[in-house]
Amino acid sequence: MNQDYIIPNNWSIIEEGFDATRVKSSESLFSIGNGAMGQRANFEEHYSGSTFQGSYIAGVYYPDKTKVGWWKNGYPEYFAKVLNAPNWIGINVEINGEKLDLATCKKVENFRRELNMKEGWLSRSFNATLQNGIEVTVNALRFLSLDLDELGAIRYSVTPINSDAKVVFKPFVDAGIENEDTNWEERFWETQSIHESDNQGFVVARTLKTHFTVSTYMHNSVYINNEFSDVKPVEINKTANAISFSYEIAAAKGQTVGLQKFGGYVSSMNYPVEELILASKNVIQKAHELGFDTLLENQKQAWAKIWEMSDITIEGDVKAQQGIRFNIFQLNQTYLGKDSRLNIGPKGFTGEKYGGSTYWDTEAYCIPFYMATKNQSVARNLLAYRYNQLDKAIENAEKLGFKNGAALYPMVTMNGEECHNEWEITFEEIHRNGAIAFAIFNYFRFTGDYSYIPEKGLEVLIGIARFWHQRATFSTFRNKYVILGVTGPNEYENNINNNWYTNYIAKWCIDYALEQIQKVSNEYQSDYTRIMNKVKLSQAEMSAWKTVADNMYFPYSEEHGVFLQQDGFLDKELITVEELDQTQRPINQKWSWDRILRSPYIKQADTLQGFYFFEDHFTKEELEKHFDFYEPFTVHESSLSPCVHSIQAAVLGRMEQAYTFYLRTSRLDLDDYNKEVHEGLHITSMAGTWMSIVEGFGGMRVKEGKLTFEPRIPKEWDAYSFKVNYRNAIVKVEVNHQGTQVSVEGDHSIDILVNGTSQLIKN
Amino acid sequence: MNQDYIIPNNWSIIEEGFDATRVKSSESLFSIGNGAMGQRANFEEHYSGSTFQGSYIAGVYYPDKTKVGWWKNGYPEYFAKVLNAPNWIGINVEINGEKLDLATCKKVENFRRELNMKEGWLSRSFNATLQNGIEVTVNALRFLSLDLDELGAIRYSVTPINSDAKVVFKPFVDAGIENEDTNWEERFWETQSIHESDNQGFVVARTLKTHFTVSTYMHNSVYINNEFSDVKPVEINKTANAISFSYEIAAAKGQTVGLQKFGGYVSSMNYPVEELILASKNVIQKAHELGFDTLLENQKQAWAKIWEMSDITIEGDVKAQQGIRFNIFQLNQTYLGKDSRLNIGPKGFTGEKYGGSTYWDTEAYCIPFYMATKNQSVARNLLAYRYNQLDKAIENAEKLGFKNGAALYPMVTMNGEECHNEWEITFEEIHRNGAIAFAIFNYFRFTGDYSYIPEKGLEVLIGIARFWHQRATFSTFRNKYVILGVTGPNEYENNINNNWYTNYIAKWCIDYALEQIQKVSNEYQSDYTRIMNKVKLSQAEMSAWKTVADNMYFPYSEEHGVFLQQDGFLDKELITVEELDQTQRPINQKWSWDRILRSPYIKQADTLQGFYFFEDHFTKEELEKHFDFYEPFTVHESSLSPCVHSIQAAVLGRMEQAYTFYLRTSRLDLDDYNKEVHEGLHITSMAGTWMSIVEGFGGMRVKEGKLTFEPRIPKEWDAYSFKVNYRNAIVKVEVNHQGTQVSVEGDHSIDILVNGTSQLIKN
Repeated sequence: MNQDYIIPNNWSIIEEGFDATRVKSSESLFSIGNGAMGQRANFEEHYSGSTFQGSYIAGVYYPDKTKVGWWKNGYPEYFAKVLNAPNWIGINVEINGEKLDLATCKKVENFRRELNMKEGWLSRSFNATLQNGIEVTVNALRFLSLDLDELGAIRYSVTPINSDAKVVFKPFVDAGIENEDTNWEERFWETQSIHESDNQGFVVARTLKTHFTVSTYMHNSVYINNEFSDVKPVEINKTANAISFSYEIAAAKGQTVGLQKFGGYVSSMNYPVEELILASKNVIQKAHELGFDTLLENQKQAWAKIWEMSDITIEGDVKAQQGIRFNIFQLNQTYLGKDSRLNIGPKGFTGEKYGGSTYWDTEAYCIPFYMATKNQSVARNLLAYRYNQLDKAIENAEKLGFKNGAALYPMVTMNGEECHNEWEITFEEIHRNGAIAFAIFNYFRFTGDYSYIPEKGLEVLIGIARFWHQRATFSTFRNKYVILGVTGPNEYENNINNNWYTNYIAKWCIDYALEQIQKVSNEYQSDYTRIMNKVKLSQAEMSAWKTVADNMYFPYSEEHGVFLQQDGFLDKELITVEELDQTQRPINQKWSWDRILRSPYIKQADTLQGFYFFEDHFTKEELEKHFDFYEPFTVHESSLSPCVHSIQAAVLGRMEQAYTFYLRTSRLDLDDYNKEVHEGLHITSMAGTWMSIVEGFGGMRVKEGKLTFEPRIPKEWDAYSFKVNYRNAIVKVEVNHQGTQVSVEGDHSIDILVNGTSQLIKN
Repeated sequence: MNQDYIIPNNWSIIEEGFDATRVKSSESLFSIGNGAMGQRANFEEHYSGSTFQGSYIAGVYYPDKTKVGWWKNGYPEYFAKVLNAPNWIGINVEINGEKLDLATCKKVENFRRELNMKEGWLSRSFNATLQNGIEVTVNALRFLSLDLDELGAIRYSVTPINSDAKVVFKPFVDAGIENEDTNWEERFWETQSIHESDNQGFVVARTLKTHFTVSTYMHNSVYINNEFSDVKPVEINKTANAISFSYEIAAAKGQTVGLQKFGGYVSSMNYPVEELILASKNVIQKAHELGFDTLLENQKQAWAKIWEMSDITIEGDVKAQQGIRFNIFQLNQTYLGKDSRLNIGPKGFTGEKYGGSTYWDTEAYCIPFYMATKNQSVARNLLAYRYNQLDKAIENAEKLGFKNGAALYPMVTMNGEECHNEWEITFEEIHRNGAIAFAIFNYFRFTGDYSYIPEKGLEVLIGIARFWHQRATFSTFRNKYVILGVTGPNEYENNINNNWYTNYIAKWCIDYALEQIQKVSNEYQSDYTRIMNKVKLSQAEMSAWKTVADNMYFPYSEEHGVFLQQDGFLDKELITVEELDQTQRPINQKWSWDRILRSPYIKQADTLQGFYFFEDHFTKEELEKHFDFYEPFTVHESSLSPCVHSIQAAVLGRMEQAYTFYLRTSRLDLDDYNKEVHEGLHITSMAGTWMSIVEGFGGMRVKEGKLTFEPRIPKEWDAYSFKVNYRNAIVKVEVNHQGTQVSVEGDHSIDILVNGTSQLIKN
């Protein structure tokens, strides 16, 4: 744990007291989003202190040129940069001619932020004493509408406390923004036009190269003592990239003057460019008709509906409760499954790091969450996203010298093209292909919906199997097939040979593809014919696959009785994390890369990731042996690490360890374990937090087509509950120290195994 | 071989006939330099075809910001970019109002270029028919003065053939230049001021960040029928970054009108900024006083002096003769050993690729050449260059987590700071440290000058030994010290474990440092005390070093009876280069990086580099076994590869192979074996060519303090000869098929072993 200022609360994230050193961190933690857009919790009014300004539109990116010292064949020409979008939240405030700026005020008191997760809004309030002696109370409330996902709304008010004051609100829209992460002082947006009409302003700007055109708009109204007041702007100021209005209001001492601002983005992803202004006006019109209060009420209802299905309750441990809700809330803010062009970026709408929107995180971590807490079409959409990009995965493999329809899915992408450009990742972290195949298996296992496989999945499985077949090489020395030069899930090793996880999932992918080809051939003849005509797969090729799968090499240590993470693992100095000097942590901030690489330290589950995916291939004793061997070398410096370990610790009945890992995963950002929350949140790993309760403590599995639970409960908790949408039945699990209650909503009866006992459960 | 248009000639590089597709290639091959500056053989007149404009000043660089996707701790903030310098050679020519441009002429005939290596000048002549029908003969001669190394001289003449013509010469100086290698359309020079006086123009420009200030100057005179003619410019044109003069001359049909241009650079490396113009004028004044013809005569004499010592003659094989002279000529154009701040960049003054000026090439390849063909102070200066940068090598090691004075010399540098930024090279290609220690050993072995070691060398050796001691880790599994995560000389493998070459040279460095400490302690007591006070080296630390050296692990294959290049080598698919589809070559242009890495293909001598350095540690049978095992996997895609193999093939008596490798190394650029000569020449490997004759065919060694030769001669040659400056005696070796003649110049008598027979040789 690295920070501890978030006030524990079951339903809200709360900060009290103003501390300039926490601003960037809080900007991440209090981020809001609605699946279509999102933003860091930047202040509306000007802030001259250290801040990371960020507002993001789903699907809008910039292809930044790959710039490397020595070019390597196969590098993508660009990497997709997450783009900071034009600012629409800005409301500069002047009080008696002095700019309100928390960094320069004489005094800031009663500062309070709340991110209300139950209802989906962010509020901020404070008392400030300006240099000119005026004391004001400020209240700000804002939300991004779930119902109208191009709309955000702000209510911002100022109350002079110690005298009358002239208050000037200067709401603006500004496309002259930069990216936080740019080294190059480059601009990525060019302003096309600026418009205004009655209290409304519009800046139409276009991204360079990708040419996403976006109308960023605002509509302002002035309120005095909460009553609408028809104040007109005294000045409208247009610059090259921005428009701002000035509203002057004489506020009597104690009188509250407010600005209501609607704003947001309307983009060319959804409208013809020439209709963007009109479409923006339509959104404003709708918002206006409903009004702020109704919109807020609708927001609460929309979130209530999400929580109805996805909430997890924990009794007796408010920090744990706050953690899981924060995770579920942020996941839903990031991705709601409405738009099949979108995916789940590792930082969501909370930062720019990494870039691109789609990683193997989606398949390995996020799909289980969305599959169990939404309609199954959401998970199917996520799978179809990869199917739609299969051609590009084949092209990507061709660039690396593979042929005949072998597919290598990109490490990072926005549109199917690889857009990461480090050879050890782009070319070598190929296990990602395995997760994409595993997700297809997992989807069928959980939803029972086989139709996806003959319709789409099988082609993906074939492309992936072809890749593994071609990627393995025969080692005469070992008389086995080996996979050389890879990076496993543990990115603290690069260009290693025979990463056990990669070899294992490669073999599994081939075996699974062969099984599914057989099944589709038997049961879906017309799909089979269509697919085989397309992919031209011969019996000879399939036999060649099988030879590779049957003769795959798996490094194993007789001495330790464990599979080895990779061929060279035992050459390392095997000093456990516990024995490591704590001043050296996190090693990714303290050590040079070569030192990390030759150390035994594991960033995230690697061999254990295989034991997580394929738990039923191994005995509990084997799991225990591997857990005991590898976990002591694991530094968990990837957000994806603690959740898998929490689940496995729970499976092994080590509840204290499971609980510790649970806190670490669920409060990773709230407590800033990895000293990096100012850069944004770890969105995809939040799905891992959900798994650590449902699969770890709840022990949920699907075994032989049957939903099973083996619930455990940490001693710190009185009770917990969760729901899953299993094959369209809503199953609720409530666990306390006395036992487990499983119930089903709606008109279903379902045979569920609880602690090994079969229960036919009806509503 | 990839091209074959250079006309064989003993002393010149000659091209005949104009071919636009060869322009960039010839621009590299006909490059000229004088150690202080150099330039590609760009045309003086405008050329609108494909060209790579390049002019370079020794020591002038730009620190380009390191730009990577994911930053890794320890990366240097910048890498040193070789900077294209302002253009002073430009002479635009208009004939009857039409610009002379070989890309747009109706016809170009009798095009001929000659780079006269004996005398050090470049000429070009052609007949051109312009679009306006005028036919002209053009002659251009240019050289960079060895005597006045801030001066270049051009004589450029035009003769209208088929009618009278108005000829306008527009000589210019232009600082508005770009780098060929920039992705970023950036400018690296800012013009400070532009001056002119009587036929002289000056552009003072400063590099960004590094703030090298350079006056690029010109002085023009017009000649009619080779007589000076006091033609004044009709126009002087100054733009933001350039100055040009226009001289108009009415040339009668058959009359030759010419422009003589002196130009070059005067830089703040040698003068206060405010004196640059004055210093430029002084250079012009000197040039003017001597005149073009005398300067050219002096140039011939200066080159004669260089050749006197460094020439290698080969009889009966003009291509081989041309090849070796080209190599010796380019080495001398690049570095003359006059300025201890300079070093030998891998592309010299012929291109921009790589960047930085100093690589391990200097120690491993160049020092033997300079040591044997120049005064020994030149080699000593090259060693001292590293001594002077020891503090920065210690800092560099500290950035990577080493301590207590451990030194890691940079992979690439301009000023001692690391300026390469790929982790697999910067952090892992650490064998470079070994070559730096080896050069100290080699210098003493050849020159007999031990004084360098107590004065400077020992501190370097201690810093390097400390590095190796700290870099090795103990493997419980192997019960040995291992060196994990390195890149060996074969850069087609990255992040490998136990590269035999690295482990071997690491152990050798420690052993050698310990020996020298002992020797200095015995024989140079005051140096010893001074050094020990400085480095604080304890007996305990030295014992710890020794433990590592004595217990170093060397991977070995019992099956093949060879040391293994690295732990995982035998896991690879061992398909020899001969069996590899030729369409796949060169693999560095055809294959993605991961494919190269998992292949067995070796870019340049790796294990064999160790057998080259430490030949006397192994039997000839061992050398043969390793040569036969590794050479078949070697693709020689590094320029540094064929020379080492040529030497070893010669040692093994395989003269045909030795000869093939010799042609490949000596004509690497002339025949463009690696399909990249357009990017510039491979300067440092040219010293390897020299070694392949002197050490390979000549069999020169120093054994037990005695100079020895075991000459062999390829059957293609009638005879060859070379000279070496051995301990201040000039030893000449002449070899033909009848035998070997060794003689000594000057007042020396020296005991030399020739083919095992001791000969006391006197003048």
